[in-house]
Amino acid sequence: MTDSTSPDPGLDERHRERMQRKKAIVDAKIESAQAEGGLILVHTGNGKGKSSSAFGMVARALGHGMKVGVVQFIKGALPTGEELFFRRFPEEVRFHAMGEGYTWNTQDRARDVAKAQAAWALAREMLADESLGLLVFDEINIALKYRYLDVQQVIADLHQRPPMQHVVLTGRAAPPELIEVAHTVTEMGLIKHAFKQGFRAQRGIEL
Amino acid sequence: MTDSTSPDPGLDERHRERMQRKKAIVDAKIESAQAEGGLILVHTGNGKGKSSSAFGMVARALGHGMKVGVVQFIKGALPTGEELFFRRFPEEVRFHAMGEGYTWNTQDRARDVAKAQAAWALAREMLADESLGLLVFDEINIALKYRYLDVQQVIADLHQRPPMQHVVLTGRAAPPELIEVAHTVTEMGLIKHAFKQGFRAQRGIEL
Repeated sequence: MTDSTSPDPGLDERHRERMQRKKAIVDAKIESAQAEGGLILVHTGNGKGKSSSAFGMVARALGHGMKVGVVQFIKGALPTGEELFFRRFPEEVRFHAMGEGYTWNTQDRARDVAKAQAAWALAREMLADESLGLLVFDEINIALKYRYLDVQQVIADLHQRPPMQHVVLTGRAAPPELIEVAHTVTEMGLIKHAFKQGFRAQRGIEL
Repeated sequence: MTDSTSPDPGLDERHRERMQRKKAIVDAKIESAQAEGGLILVHTGNGKGKSSSAFGMVARALGHGMKVGVVQFIKGALPTGEELFFRRFPEEVRFHAMGEGYTWNTQDRARDVAKAQAAWALAREMLADESLGLLVFDEINIALKYRYLDVQQVIADLHQRPPMQHVVLTGRAAPPELIEVAHTVTEMGLIKHAFKQGFRAQRGIEL
């Protein structure tokens, strides 16, 4: 079947017919998807948007009156825009940033493991707090990749959480075990990046 | 070169060496990327996170004291979590949602074109306002795909914006002309989605 793209007298009518078919399909899909429950979401891949998408969900959750917990596993010494912003709402957002980055900045594996474990201890507290409707474990996948954290322990703790709590886990190279237990997994693919065109990381975009 | 994954006495030392090499590469890249300027970012693909990533950047920008403009080209009659949340900050966020969705819900192409054009008129006003550091044109790619808007006109207007203004354009099926002029393009790829496992769209996650 070909689909003419040049405007012609039948365009509006064909558009209507196509949209009617589409509406029927979408309605049927929505009808069959009625389950509720806390989701595990993973954002991985080499592209931009893994963390910012998680923080967009934080905004969305706050808009619905939910409370949110955030643990950032890798950010550097300077507070990011999202930290500066969400710290405005201490009653609604429990925000923990590890403070100093690890991996290529520290070159001290034992310290990195200790820091990641301390961050996970906080994450576990949040996973036991049913007043928190959404948790973000930002860049945790890096800690899993370098085995600073044990993926089976992380998964076991995730499965103990309150039934309606959502958890978003971000970072490149999500381990297959985590992808297996997640409900929604998105791979952010890099098609182009301003950095490769000589632009430094900019406030509001990457920072 | 093979990379042993089982813990052994040399692990910490090899980790240190690998991280030192990585730091040198990252430092050199940062050194060479010093340009500043307003970016055009595109979020496309079939996966989750195109809009939420844009709203995470809104939070990030607000954390740095920037002002933000948002035009939502497709959202339905009910306000989303991000709209409910960002409308709390009328001095910092200029938020416009088209109000009623189009395409499969309306089945009236002429009306859809008129609504998309009206939304673009607002977008153009924001593109002329240098007090706005970040703009989000959410789901505009759908309007471009159905030719409710002319991509060449949109690109011409984008190129007229203030030099430090960033613009994020989201939605499936971004046209190649837009990808060509963008600095950063991310394709959100669907690996798994809770919807296909019977979960309905949930507040804080999709809504």
